[in-house]
Amino acid sequence: MMNFLEERIVKDGIVKEGNVLKVDSFLNHQMDIALFDKIGQEFKERFKDKKINKILTIEASGIGIAAVTAMHFGVPVVFAKKAKSINLEGEMYVAEVESFTHKTKNQVIVSKKFLNEEDRVLIIDDFLANGCALQGLIQIVQASGAVAEGIGIVIEKGFQPGGRIIRNLGYQLESLAIVDAMDPASGGIIFRR
Amino acid sequence: MMNFLEERIVKDGIVKEGNVLKVDSFLNHQMDIALFDKIGQEFKERFKDKKINKILTIEASGIGIAAVTAMHFGVPVVFAKKAKSINLEGEMYVAEVESFTHKTKNQVIVSKKFLNEEDRVLIIDDFLANGCALQGLIQIVQASGAVAEGIGIVIEKGFQPGGRIIRNLGYQLESLAIVDAMDPASGGIIFRR
Repeated sequence: MMNFLEERIVKDGIVKEGNVLKVDSFLNHQMDIALFDKIGQEFKERFKDKKINKILTIEASGIGIAAVTAMHFGVPVVFAKKAKSINLEGEMYVAEVESFTHKTKNQVIVSKKFLNEEDRVLIIDDFLANGCALQGLIQIVQASGAVAEGIGIVIEKGFQPGGRIIRNLGYQLESLAIVDAMDPASGGIIFRR
Repeated sequence: MMNFLEERIVKDGIVKEGNVLKVDSFLNHQMDIALFDKIGQEFKERFKDKKINKILTIEASGIGIAAVTAMHFGVPVVFAKKAKSINLEGEMYVAEVESFTHKTKNQVIVSKKFLNEEDRVLIIDDFLANGCALQGLIQIVQASGAVAEGIGIVIEKGFQPGGRIIRNLGYQLESLAIVDAMDPASGGIIFRR
């Protein structure tokens, strides 16, 4: 049986050539806030045993999900910024990550003011594929001395290595939908059970 | 008497040289979601006579406020993307806007799928100074045939021309705090009454 998110992906997601899943009608361009509310509730349920005091995400499409999820946790959100080059105004944590898809180096940046060793962090993002952005966020949490209590992802591409690597490292990674295969010809999507 | 947002700006905002007001501890890097909830409630109150079916904002720092505000309106959010150059995948509304601050041309982009003549739009953003981003969003709403029912801004720099221009054009622009002057030496902030 599919969960509410998988049902929505089947209804409104569009499978394109090159393992592209377009969900811009409800997730990452237009945002269905009622759906986000359910997503936030589900993350709260899955991490109910964790003492989380802060949510960390990355611009741009993680922000909406993180903000609505934060209402369920009653905690603030910090969003990391992406940059092509350093612009060190104040003290920043900077993680350098290499994009698999675009073969470019990017920086993930968070001000040192907003993350420290007292923080117990839930990392939230919309997509997990190769996991570059997520690796950058984890690197920053570690540099700050905070603890990554868990990672909540809306859609994981299970046929790409990001999720496996993160689970192998021992993190509690909860993806609300894991796509194991997609067929652009039929539009079919196979979810992990 | 100051409102809840002005009080917070006085408490946690930092005035810097060059008319810079840093509010990254609660608004645009770390996001105080309980404060965002109050902001959303206040926008709902100020636009209660308008029939709004969609909120439009722009990445990145508008997204969190728009998402939480949308929970009060019960409507979806569309966030516009910023780009240096056109990347026309599918049909997009593209507004070209010139940045006053950086003297660069930027594009504000929204997919045509998510805005049309049936939409009655509330535009939300965190800051209004010269109003370049906002002008781009208005341009896109007009191009789509939708109606801009109102504009909700968290902090307006009243000593810069953006707000006056938008009000002169007849829009209902509601800024929750309008800063008329700032003094970097004392840290003092004067709000419009």
